[in-house]
Amino acid sequence: MEIDYSNIKVIGFDADDTLWVIETYFREAEEDVGRLLSHYETPNKIDQELFKMEMKNLSTYGYGVKGFVLSMVELAIDVSNGQVSNSIVSKILNIGKDMINKPIELLDGVEKVLITLSKHYRLIVATKGDLLDQERKLEKSGLLQYFHHIEVLSEKQEANYEKLLLHLDINPAEFLMIGNSLKSDVLPVVNIGASAIHIPFHTTWQHENISKEQTHGKSYKTIDHLIEILDVLQ
Amino acid sequence: MEIDYSNIKVIGFDADDTLWVIETYFREAEEDVGRLLSHYETPNKIDQELFKMEMKNLSTYGYGVKGFVLSMVELAIDVSNGQVSNSIVSKILNIGKDMINKPIELLDGVEKVLITLSKHYRLIVATKGDLLDQERKLEKSGLLQYFHHIEVLSEKQEANYEKLLLHLDINPAEFLMIGNSLKSDVLPVVNIGASAIHIPFHTTWQHENISKEQTHGKSYKTIDHLIEILDVLQ
Repeated sequence: MEIDYSNIKVIGFDADDTLWVIETYFREAEEDVGRLLSHYETPNKIDQELFKMEMKNLSTYGYGVKGFVLSMVELAIDVSNGQVSNSIVSKILNIGKDMINKPIELLDGVEKVLITLSKHYRLIVATKGDLLDQERKLEKSGLLQYFHHIEVLSEKQEANYEKLLLHLDINPAEFLMIGNSLKSDVLPVVNIGASAIHIPFHTTWQHENISKEQTHGKSYKTIDHLIEILDVLQ
Repeated sequence: MEIDYSNIKVIGFDADDTLWVIETYFREAEEDVGRLLSHYETPNKIDQELFKMEMKNLSTYGYGVKGFVLSMVELAIDVSNGQVSNSIVSKILNIGKDMINKPIELLDGVEKVLITLSKHYRLIVATKGDLLDQERKLEKSGLLQYFHHIEVLSEKQEANYEKLLLHLDINPAEFLMIGNSLKSDVLPVVNIGASAIHIPFHTTWQHENISKEQTHGKSYKTIDHLIEILDVLQ
């Protein structure tokens, strides 16, 4: 059955790994820290332990680079049994600063899609993460002009989307969300009666993975590249 | 000349050190880190160096506890010439976690003021800092019910207030901001044609200090305790 998008008036875009590359930088940082700590553990083990550390700290630190760096420092001390050198800790701090200050690398077709859609729809950004980081990335991206509203959320669960739509006076039936995470951009949106389109990014953070059961029976479209959205909404 | 508040329809509250205590915790953390590093420098010198480090990192990390902790770790490595022990770095990480997880200590009269004012005005929170931290503190404070809107800003400058008022469809002449920082809660608000009331907290972060020249000729009221606002607005 084809999904009907003729009611849609407002389109929400996820930002990280939907408009620009991010997850790749986290992967690179994980590889870097694996190399820095290779004296103590295998890269694979360090990767696993880092994920565990991030999950342990998630409720305290939330999403974003700063919490990620704090978890990497804590991991380095743990995994080395308190033997890691100050020089390695400094390098970890610098990995974080480099991530925060990286230039924005837009994904293919982003600008064309936004130019086209902004003529017919109200566009907003709904992104999760660190407020300052996300604002700064949008600023650097040169894309701000296409959006009526930017919302940085501490979580992307049903209640967060409901509050956002209520606040912006948007009817769920008129709202379409586009993003790379089934867990954050698609399922909670579909569950509150709005529409969603999934564009998988080539790498997904383990925390965003979901099971087949969770998507069973849910109506959403999947496309390979953002540019295809123009055909879908034609 | 008395300031006339009869036009006011919306009241904005700063949160940290206006609704609840925060700066005291930063001061305590600074003292703790001073003690931890006393082997390398005097507490006074460490205090100064920490402030410099925070200022150096402010544009990268922004406000909030996580950036503060990252700056403390960097300082510990610097000040010890790369000799600080892992055990001290761990203690610094834990200072940060404790700060984030501290219970909320409301300032005197907050609940009474909010109950009373919420009957006659639309109340909002306009706070600077880490999104997750600020949301969590509001949640823990039990005060959410009194507010129509919560805005966490990455900065509190004139443009941020202008955007907020525009977004919420509030006329500056009808807006009153209440907070402990002349730099963040009073001057930018007065400069865009809205009203502000200053309630100094007993300790102010050096970064928020401003000169006498900056307040010269600006119209705002100063009160000693939040509860006095009820008389002012009567």
